[in-house]
Amino acid sequence: MSNPFLVNHGPFLISNILSNLKLNYDKSKKDYEIYDIKDLLSATNKDISFFHSKKYSNLAKNTKASFCITTHNLKENLPKSCEPIIVENVLVSTSKITEIFYPDSIHDNFDITSRNINETKFKDKVKYGKNVLIGENVSIGSNCLIGHNSIIEKNVSIGNNCSIGSNNIIRNTLIKDNTRILDNCVIGKHGFGFFPIKNNNLRFPHIGIVLIEENCEIGCGSTIDRGSMSNTVIGKNSYLDNQIHIAHNVRIGKNSIIAGQVGIAGSTIIGENVKIGGQAGISGHLNIGNNVEIGGGSGVINDIPDNRKVMGYPAKSIREFLREKK
Amino acid sequence: MSNPFLVNHGPFLISNILSNLKLNYDKSKKDYEIYDIKDLLSATNKDISFFHSKKYSNLAKNTKASFCITTHNLKENLPKSCEPIIVENVLVSTSKITEIFYPDSIHDNFDITSRNINETKFKDKVKYGKNVLIGENVSIGSNCLIGHNSIIEKNVSIGNNCSIGSNNIIRNTLIKDNTRILDNCVIGKHGFGFFPIKNNNLRFPHIGIVLIEENCEIGCGSTIDRGSMSNTVIGKNSYLDNQIHIAHNVRIGKNSIIAGQVGIAGSTIIGENVKIGGQAGISGHLNIGNNVEIGGGSGVINDIPDNRKVMGYPAKSIREFLREKK
Amino acid sequence: MSNPFLVNHGPFLISNILSNLKLNYDKSKKDYEIYDIKDLLSATNKDISFFHSKKYSNLAKNTKASFCITTHNLKENLPKSCEPIIVENVLVSTSKITEIFYPDSIHDNFDITSRNINETKFKDKVKYGKNVLIGENVSIGSNCLIGHNSIIEKNVSIGNNCSIGSNNIIRNTLIKDNTRILDNCVIGKHGFGFFPIKNNNLRFPHIGIVLIEENCEIGCGSTIDRGSMSNTVIGKNSYLDNQIHIAHNVRIGKNSIIAGQVGIAGSTIIGENVKIGGQAGISGHLNIGNNVEIGGGSGVINDIPDNRKVMGYPAKSIREFLREKK
Repeated sequence: MSNPFLVNHGPFLISNILSNLKLNYDKSKKDYEIYDIKDLLSATNKDISFFHSKKYSNLAKNTKASFCITTHNLKENLPKSCEPIIVENVLVSTSKITEIFYPDSIHDNFDITSRNINETKFKDKVKYGKNVLIGENVSIGSNCLIGHNSIIEKNVSIGNNCSIGSNNIIRNTLIKDNTRILDNCVIGKHGFGFFPIKNNNLRFPHIGIVLIEENCEIGCGSTIDRGSMSNTVIGKNSYLDNQIHIAHNVRIGKNSIIAGQVGIAGSTIIGENVKIGGQAGISGHLNIGNNVEIGGGSGVINDIPDNRKVMGYPAKSIREFLREKK
Repeated sequence: MSNPFLVNHGPFLISNILSNLKLNYDKSKKDYEIYDIKDLLSATNKDISFFHSKKYSNLAKNTKASFCITTHNLKENLPKSCEPIIVENVLVSTSKITEIFYPDSIHDNFDITSRNINETKFKDKVKYGKNVLIGENVSIGSNCLIGHNSIIEKNVSIGNNCSIGSNNIIRNTLIKDNTRILDNCVIGKHGFGFFPIKNNNLRFPHIGIVLIEENCEIGCGSTIDRGSMSNTVIGKNSYLDNQIHIAHNVRIGKNSIIAGQVGIAGSTIIGENVKIGGQAGISGHLNIGNNVEIGGGSGVINDIPDNRKVMGYPAKSIREFLREKK
Repeated sequence: MSNPFLVNHGPFLISNILSNLKLNYDKSKKDYEIYDIKDLLSATNKDISFFHSKKYSNLAKNTKASFCITTHNLKENLPKSCEPIIVENVLVSTSKITEIFYPDSIHDNFDITSRNINETKFKDKVKYGKNVLIGENVSIGSNCLIGHNSIIEKNVSIGNNCSIGSNNIIRNTLIKDNTRILDNCVIGKHGFGFFPIKNNNLRFPHIGIVLIEENCEIGCGSTIDRGSMSNTVIGKNSYLDNQIHIAHNVRIGKNSIIAGQVGIAGSTIIGENVKIGGQAGISGHLNIGNNVEIGGGSGVINDIPDNRKVMGYPAKSIREFLREKK
């Protein structure tokens, strides 16, 4: 599992897990113990997995999971060692099972365990402002600063020489050395993931974290959501300007530069040395290569190979954009 | 009046009201008592109304108001029972009269009446964080959470089972059951409404509220302004992602989904089951139908009928957008 | 120097300054005392200046600086009275020298000097909320309000009759009379300026301030960065809506109106009476004339002369935009 913080409430019997999905399971394996829910690649024979799209057929063929949530059409791809569990909506069922193992991954109520830093072991170790709160399961390296009114909620690890500004809220986040978070940021909240259901949407669990690597800077008023099944990652020495929104599962490579008010939608992968101009928006589930430059205000709706310079909405070669617009 | 919280300082004599507009009123009705200022439809014979555009002629013909602020060109549409008050700029005069009845509707200074929740009746009823403040005229239902540093300023009603995160500022707002406000939001402030006047703009009163219905979620860092003469409404089970701005008088239907960094300008009406992609912007005073899908990054500058999928700037049929951009 | 607050740690011997750039300087003038680093125009013979682009050749010819950081190609433009110091990257060297004079201009750690307003001389002078903090070197005029949790960090001057809302963070800022800052703003932080260097970017000093003139309004959740070598300025009676980002060195003329979620990139100059629609973005280093109107959602990438109405991305005449898009 990608989140070193969340408590796994398993194992559970497979029959109990499935009764939760309103599935009656009375086969020989009904007392089989399941320890975790994992993707097709990382699941072991003690885990249950999920398989919802043809594009993962190769992973499905080789999965070591003992059970797999899937559909009638897809089940033929699974190996004999893996028993298919047929459901109507794979992701909804996956979501419900994940909630059984990780009940804390659905809701992000405020962290009621947070105490004033004066009352914690960090009192003499950290330089801090007024009204700083610290939750459970927090570690902070040497030579760190935490500004006024900042709330380091539960499940946060901060490296050495980090400067956290004022009015920040951080949870489920791992921050490496020499990183600076400016002010008014919210980092590590669950992403905008749910299944639309009339009158009462179903929230998707978020069992990932936010990982911010060494030497990064995160500007004021930014929001970085934690991952759903994987992590959200900001690579080494990447700088983000103010009012940026990074959605769940986004991965940004090292040495990237992102100007103000940029938004990156869920699960998009950004390469290294990428420059993104102000207010640009990038759709979800895209691959943006290394050394790419994206002009300010662009709307990127397709993958971009390495070394390209693009601009426009939808974004195209910057030369073409400027020629057409003359 | 649409705001159940604001105190109406009336009634006032019509002659006193008009002397405030530098109008000398010495007719027989000069001692007539006016109880409120209302739109053409809801005004009674104890109220004054306003009529500034031909498109409201039908409403004008049937108004029950005893007096109506209007112009020379429009006054013929009013019934005999309604005495026209001729002014140069109807909206400026309306604004000035509204200020007489509701002097608290112009400025949004911080709420000096707010006290620590420890000192209020909510102490044992609500689960709350550190440094939570509560203003006057606040009600909170059962089983609610209010996070650290959140300020529930005056004139707020929160239903049952609501989760309010940390660092929020809320005023003049009615929140129904099971709704979740994440962190760093500002909800219920006056909208961006004023008459541009050289060296000293004239602010418009905001006597509306924000109404957030059941089962909604409002993402981190969002701002929702209260209405000017009507209310700002977020419909049942609508979910808003992070860093969204909803301007005054906007109405969003139920079951809508709005992705990060979207902005909706003043007085626009959004239907039910509408999906809006990240960073899209919608101009003011538009009608967006039910089941509409608006692509990320779009700029909507015209009404959209039911069931359309649009994208682009200006937004057009998504098929056309993708074909043209090939 | 444009910042009345920052402490200049000079003078320094020219040889010491240059040894910091790894330059050995052993000429007759090696014991010359340098008092400040200034631009070509404002430097006196006690200062060092910098010259990095041909477009400043005229200023270079007339500079009074005794020394100037520049390149081989440019040095011929300097007068005899000014000794060229040849470097590889003028701006990197300028940045390093600026840091010598103003070591506090690089990092914006939280202001550890801030104390609760209860403990300051403002206790009886200002109406304030809970948990208000005040840093060193702050002045506040008469009849001001400061809302809950706001942090007036060091180096701030606030005029008379100002209303500062809640949850704001302000530093290195001069606010004139009758101005209103709503909630959740961060004003006066260093801009997004640095030299990209693999694995460890080099931050640019920011020795400017933010200057907000009389009768302005700054909406909720906005960020205004202070200038690098000059100031960031919001002109008299200009109104900014919510969630706006103003980058370093931007200057906005008086009586301008800027709608929600607009972003203005670094060093752009905006004229007087300018109206900018919601979500518009303006590139850096541009000149926008007086009385210009920019439609919502526009992306401005070129200068705009006075009195034009533009829209689109890239922004063009609004008539042309609407005709083409039919």
